[in-house]
Amino acid sequence: KMACYGRCFCCQCCCREGDTRTPEELTILGEIPDQEEILPRKDYESLDYDRCISEPYVEVLEGLDNKKAKKYEAVQWMMVFVIGVTVGLVGLFVDSFVRLFNKLKFTVVAIEKCTDKGCLSLSLVELLAFNMTFVFIASVLVLIEPVAAGSGIPEIKSYLNGVKIPGIVRLQTFVCKAAGVLFSVAGGLFVGKEGPMIHSGAIVGAGLPQFQSITFKKIKFDFPYFRSDRDKRDFVSAGAAAGVAAAFGAPIGGTLFSLEEGSSFWNQALTWKVLFCSMSATFTLNFFRSGINFSKWGSFQLPGLLNFGEFKCPDGDKNCHLWTAVDLAFFVLMGVVGGLLGALFNCMNKNLAKYRIRHIHPKAKFIRVLESLLVTMVTTVVIFGASMLGECRDLSTPTTHNTTVRLAGSEDINSTIRQFFCSNKTYNDMATLFFNPQEAAIHQLFHQDGTFSPVTLSVFFFLYFLLACWTYGLSVPSGLFVPSLLCGAAFGRLVANVLKVKLGMDIYSGTFALIGAAAFLGGVVRMTISLTVILIESTNEITYGLPIMITLMVAKWTGDFFNRGIYDIHIQLRGVPLLEWETEVEMDRLTASDIMEPNLTYVYPHTRVQSLVSILRTTVYHAFPVVTENRQNERDFMKGNILISNNIRFKKSSVVSRAGEQRRRCQSMKSYPSSELRNVCDEQSAAVEPSEEGEDLLQQMLERRHAPYPNLYPDQSPSEEWTMEERFRPLTFHGLILRSQLVNLLIRGVCYAENQSSASQPRLSYAEMTEDYPRYPDIHDLDLALLNPRMIVDVTPYMNPCPYTVSPNARISQVFNLFRTMGLRHLPVVNAVGEIVGIITRHNLTHEFLVAKLRQHYITI
Amino acid sequence: KMACYGRCFCCQCCCREGDTRTPEELTILGEIPDQEEILPRKDYESLDYDRCISEPYVEVLEGLDNKKAKKYEAVQWMMVFVIGVTVGLVGLFVDSFVRLFNKLKFTVVAIEKCTDKGCLSLSLVELLAFNMTFVFIASVLVLIEPVAAGSGIPEIKSYLNGVKIPGIVRLQTFVCKAAGVLFSVAGGLFVGKEGPMIHSGAIVGAGLPQFQSITFKKIKFDFPYFRSDRDKRDFVSAGAAAGVAAAFGAPIGGTLFSLEEGSSFWNQALTWKVLFCSMSATFTLNFFRSGINFSKWGSFQLPGLLNFGEFKCPDGDKNCHLWTAVDLAFFVLMGVVGGLLGALFNCMNKNLAKYRIRHIHPKAKFIRVLESLLVTMVTTVVIFGASMLGECRDLSTPTTHNTTVRLAGSEDINSTIRQFFCSNKTYNDMATLFFNPQEAAIHQLFHQDGTFSPVTLSVFFFLYFLLACWTYGLSVPSGLFVPSLLCGAAFGRLVANVLKVKLGMDIYSGTFALIGAAAFLGGVVRMTISLTVILIESTNEITYGLPIMITLMVAKWTGDFFNRGIYDIHIQLRGVPLLEWETEVEMDRLTASDIMEPNLTYVYPHTRVQSLVSILRTTVYHAFPVVTENRQNERDFMKGNILISNNIRFKKSSVVSRAGEQRRRCQSMKSYPSSELRNVCDEQSAAVEPSEEGEDLLQQMLERRHAPYPNLYPDQSPSEEWTMEERFRPLTFHGLILRSQLVNLLIRGVCYAENQSSASQPRLSYAEMTEDYPRYPDIHDLDLALLNPRMIVDVTPYMNPCPYTVSPNARISQVFNLFRTMGLRHLPVVNAVGEIVGIITRHNLTHEFLVAKLRQHYITI
Repeated sequence: KMACYGRCFCCQCCCREGDTRTPEELTILGEIPDQEEILPRKDYESLDYDRCISEPYVEVLEGLDNKKAKKYEAVQWMMVFVIGVTVGLVGLFVDSFVRLFNKLKFTVVAIEKCTDKGCLSLSLVELLAFNMTFVFIASVLVLIEPVAAGSGIPEIKSYLNGVKIPGIVRLQTFVCKAAGVLFSVAGGLFVGKEGPMIHSGAIVGAGLPQFQSITFKKIKFDFPYFRSDRDKRDFVSAGAAAGVAAAFGAPIGGTLFSLEEGSSFWNQALTWKVLFCSMSATFTLNFFRSGINFSKWGSFQLPGLLNFGEFKCPDGDKNCHLWTAVDLAFFVLMGVVGGLLGALFNCMNKNLAKYRIRHIHPKAKFIRVLESLLVTMVTTVVIFGASMLGECRDLSTPTTHNTTVRLAGSEDINSTIRQFFCSNKTYNDMATLFFNPQEAAIHQLFHQDGTFSPVTLSVFFFLYFLLACWTYGLSVPSGLFVPSLLCGAAFGRLVANVLKVKLGMDIYSGTFALIGAAAFLGGVVRMTISLTVILIESTNEITYGLPIMITLMVAKWTGDFFNRGIYDIHIQLRGVPLLEWETEVEMDRLTASDIMEPNLTYVYPHTRVQSLVSILRTTVYHAFPVVTENRQNERDFMKGNILISNNIRFKKSSVVSRAGEQRRRCQSMKSYPSSELRNVCDEQSAAVEPSEEGEDLLQQMLERRHAPYPNLYPDQSPSEEWTMEERFRPLTFHGLILRSQLVNLLIRGVCYAENQSSASQPRLSYAEMTEDYPRYPDIHDLDLALLNPRMIVDVTPYMNPCPYTVSPNARISQVFNLFRTMGLRHLPVVNAVGEIVGIITRHNLTHEFLVAKLRQHYITI
Repeated sequence: KMACYGRCFCCQCCCREGDTRTPEELTILGEIPDQEEILPRKDYESLDYDRCISEPYVEVLEGLDNKKAKKYEAVQWMMVFVIGVTVGLVGLFVDSFVRLFNKLKFTVVAIEKCTDKGCLSLSLVELLAFNMTFVFIASVLVLIEPVAAGSGIPEIKSYLNGVKIPGIVRLQTFVCKAAGVLFSVAGGLFVGKEGPMIHSGAIVGAGLPQFQSITFKKIKFDFPYFRSDRDKRDFVSAGAAAGVAAAFGAPIGGTLFSLEEGSSFWNQALTWKVLFCSMSATFTLNFFRSGINFSKWGSFQLPGLLNFGEFKCPDGDKNCHLWTAVDLAFFVLMGVVGGLLGALFNCMNKNLAKYRIRHIHPKAKFIRVLESLLVTMVTTVVIFGASMLGECRDLSTPTTHNTTVRLAGSEDINSTIRQFFCSNKTYNDMATLFFNPQEAAIHQLFHQDGTFSPVTLSVFFFLYFLLACWTYGLSVPSGLFVPSLLCGAAFGRLVANVLKVKLGMDIYSGTFALIGAAAFLGGVVRMTISLTVILIESTNEITYGLPIMITLMVAKWTGDFFNRGIYDIHIQLRGVPLLEWETEVEMDRLTASDIMEPNLTYVYPHTRVQSLVSILRTTVYHAFPVVTENRQNERDFMKGNILISNNIRFKKSSVVSRAGEQRRRCQSMKSYPSSELRNVCDEQSAAVEPSEEGEDLLQQMLERRHAPYPNLYPDQSPSEEWTMEERFRPLTFHGLILRSQLVNLLIRGVCYAENQSSASQPRLSYAEMTEDYPRYPDIHDLDLALLNPRMIVDVTPYMNPCPYTVSPNARISQVFNLFRTMGLRHLPVVNAVGEIVGIITRHNLTHEFLVAKLRQHYITI
């Protein structure tokens, strides 16, 4: 296999990575998966979508009524509206400046007016100077904030999936990304501005509500809002959707994009807000662009940064169809080819990215700038050289088109052709594609009635494919949508050329160019629903729904046969522990107990400060289960150490029993006014009253029930010398407490002395608990001299007393669904008698981990 | 309040039902909610989306590999494609016959050619005869299958929400619905065919896969497929989406409709299939309609049964805009008015429906037919009379329009005008609206450049509003979408008239008609995302996104101030225990233990047949927790009764402990080939080996841990004489078993004799367990003589050993999310030591139940 690697650049990924053989076979063959692949790294932090319902939070809840909830709702609506408008304005900013820079560039570099050779050389030098300056600026901006590189979609996907990549939603990143993409696009690189728009939108979504809550602190809603991963992620969803909406003029597609990538359950209220946010962004951008570009203030003619113009048959031609049932067969074939091309693209880009990780990233930072400049130079020279080689083609007579008011209000299609030394009424087809902004080139391929020569289209496709592949992954902000679309459109137009001219079929070339674009884009990014909807919305033509969907489906299936989507590849290379949509059926052979982490670091409900500090300093876990031990003769222990007796007392009081619950209900019934209910209650309480003295019995039973462990109740974590039985003694699970909460409690001195009651411990409010979000202090910043190590901390009011849990026998699919759907971060595994036996986090559910466990399972069974 | 009721027909519902006051206030005021409202009935069965992972299912899973899973996947894709095509054909069938009947009717009844009075009377009689015959047929069809009445959307909403309404997805219902809607539409009633299309689609979705699995039994996939509520519901989602898609030509809207109404989590694979199904339906219908109506086989020009035609400015008019920013203000106002009108409509229809439930439904069935005929007669007379009163308006010169190829390929707008005694070049505006199919009338209002007089529009709106309101709820299949759209379009056109003619504003009338239609429809049905998308797709114009969305939002908010959507009202009147999207914030003051049902009927892992039969015969629960009791001296008990010792043994063996788990892991590590992992393992096992003798100690500890209960282990359910402590003794939870499973075990004689080991019990395969789905045998059909009451049944292999559970302290929002998102039917509440303390079902989470509990909570606290 390695020999093959040397010979063939991409045979490795073209032989379907790893998936062809079951883990069973792999083990038999003695193969282990390619160690070159970067495995999920553990140092990414996860986000938590679950709400911690601790006592301070309950207090907030108790103070809530519907009026306050409505006020909060209104603030949320206002917020998403502001986010939408802001994202729209960012789109406007990027678009305006790119236009300005392009105009500037082509005003200075006037090749078409050249007559002699010297002028041409001068033009090339001018063009190189412009492009390299622009790209240099973009590169330097990325040096300032390295996560601003690339399209940002992998990062946003990760964030919505629940993984925090450091710096991804910071203001600095936003500035570098938005400014950087201007220059990288203006610099003539084969990059799009759509991906960076989505990233910018997400940052706006993450940032604006925080800004609001800092600035307008006076507006108190007594509601725990905007200060949790949950709310932040909702706003990021809205922002990312708005980004898509602004980029493509596709508000519904944007909403579906957020849904497809986000891990949370389908939440109608949120979806409705996300759609509103997308609409706001689309129409803000639309309003200003229509106003600025056409001086038609108040009208809405230019929906997104990218739009495909209007596909329509020439007026009066009754036999023209955009597509027919017969064409569908060709679309399927084009889907297959698009999938293959996309797989090739991804494979090449992956190897390039690996090369970059190994050989470029470790070196000095300016090397990256040099690489960007090199790519710019090559791209510029190729554009320039190729444009010289184009054929002169006849211009179709624009009679049928001129009278139509174009839906998108875009410029007339013939205004963007390039003559380039061709005579009048003809144009240079290669220059028209290369020497235009990419959006204009796409429009040409979609709507130009004149023809492009097959040779031109092939050369264009080939050059563009290679250069776009080289470009993606450079240290500049760079989207991939537009280059892929353009590349695919050339392929589609080529197919149309062959069918129309060579075979004489009656087809509509624009449709084939569109389908080609969809096929290639689908083959590269492998998105499904959202991409379908985005493309339908961009064409503004519902009848393209079926062909686009079928093409994307076929392209995805074909591509998936070889490798994964480009975004997933880059996520994998970064080692982000992304959770897939669902697990494979085979994984259901495993149960929760097979994958959980059984070595637990836990805290007791009442713990000494010294123990907490040592636990926090010696581990890196983000949450700790709060447990009590099951021991014999608890009564004896209670009389001894105050700490132990407090723990035992908490345990007893925390166990809700059926009898106790029933008694409580009956007592509450008695005070209920309704006569009917009172009758029920009286009947019950008749049975209850006599057993009042039985309560003591029950109390005794409860005390005895949790029986024996022949150990002292330790005031410390497990030590190395313990035997296995000591280390793994049964622990009753009571709740989860986060590292940040523990540190907070220590910093604010929430503890009580041994000779005091635990009730004397100071109380923190919800606001105090969450004040430092999202950057909680570190345990190592804590001044130990300020702490009394013998004091005791009662963590029970602050822990989450009822996180979702699973049984050790639960199948992986069940665990996975719960974890992913609820957006959890820690999932305790609790057995039939309420003992915690392990904990499941994101890492225990990644594909790589599951495959390893499954292999192990096959060996042992 | 009751006096007010007498005076004002709808003051009751116009004073915002119940919601204005908090439960707290209501209690203080001594008010209880209107007892007239029908409370959720308990006799609807719920659906279960959770998979029961019992041993037979695990066996199936173990036999699975990825290849079989792919085969199953392929069958699913094929299935959704077939469903889509079938739904498209159903749409075609309905559409063709409605057209045929209408053509027949208007060929015979030729009013326009009348010259004298006698002819007019004759025409009226002929028209009456036609209409009443048609409606009579529709009514009789509904008599055969009563659930075929109405639009079917409330029923499908309920089904997707997880409530099974008897007969709702049967073949008979399908036939009556599809045939019935033909006749009710052809009968001239103000009903649409869209709602019934959705219902028909859902039935196709539910039925086809069942049919497949019955017919092609030979094709065995060894996979538990198509035989569970879960799979069936997925296919119903797809079918319903296809119905929407075929009705409106809105595949994306259909998909979102399914998602919005379905309770399951966002499942990408399913969504993708649903979208494909919708696309198939849309384009099947499109293909055949284009072929049949225009003889353009192979092209796709008529997307859905209902389409709005193409909104576009006349060619060459550069100043024309479909809408501008200024218009948005009017749209908001129209949204408010639409919301008010919708609320009024709903309120009137609700009172009418209540009247029908009380006074018509209890009477003989033919009364319903008579009511339908009465409405038909009135409607026909109104149509006829009003058409005589219309004004003659000038026809706009159709020069600009004629040359355009209409996108939807619909007939030229002027072909559906009605002259009705008006001179040439003029038309009767009232007759044009009333004497056309509703779709044509909508087209007229949207696209007719000629004017309608304000008086005509007002009269039309008023009459139509009243008649549509009276019609909805009749015993005929009847949709509400098209009548609402038409009614609203008249209102919108009226606004446009006022603004354009009276105020001289430069607006596009069609847009206002569209917004009016959206506002009224939104006010009536109160759908959000899906309706927005459906309307955008129907107009095929993405730039209408913002105005439609804003209008729908405003209409919904305005309407929600007064009452609920019409579908929700009808669901409420049927007493369906629907679960909302989310609970109110206030409900979080309650915990799971406040709402759970604490009186449990449970079974032991090993139970005698006689106990099972008595439990099954005396209760109606659909699931029983499998529990063991916590008792002292279990060792002593084990020596006595074989039954008790089996139960105790099961309990011990079922408790996974951390130490045991760790030991298992280390042992499995040893056989693992990888050297790195083996090192880890050796290290661990070094710690393990010496404690091997400790295992016996551990065993003892495990045995002692579950301590005391001073009771005999009863072989029976709780009896009435027991004390409270006896009735509510602590029970360790082990799993859930369904009634259907227990009956199945009894019928198939799965049990063992007391003197045998439980391993001798016969085993059922997964196929045998699910063979009778969906109509499982009843316990009362069981012949008791065939059973040996002293035999023991071991239910543990068949129970679901790890259903989702919640803690008694979990807040309502958390419980609700888990329940709704995962589509559960039973949710056991398990405390910190693994004892079951209650169970939560759908009824414990309905709004009414929660409000009652919250009121109780306020009193006792």
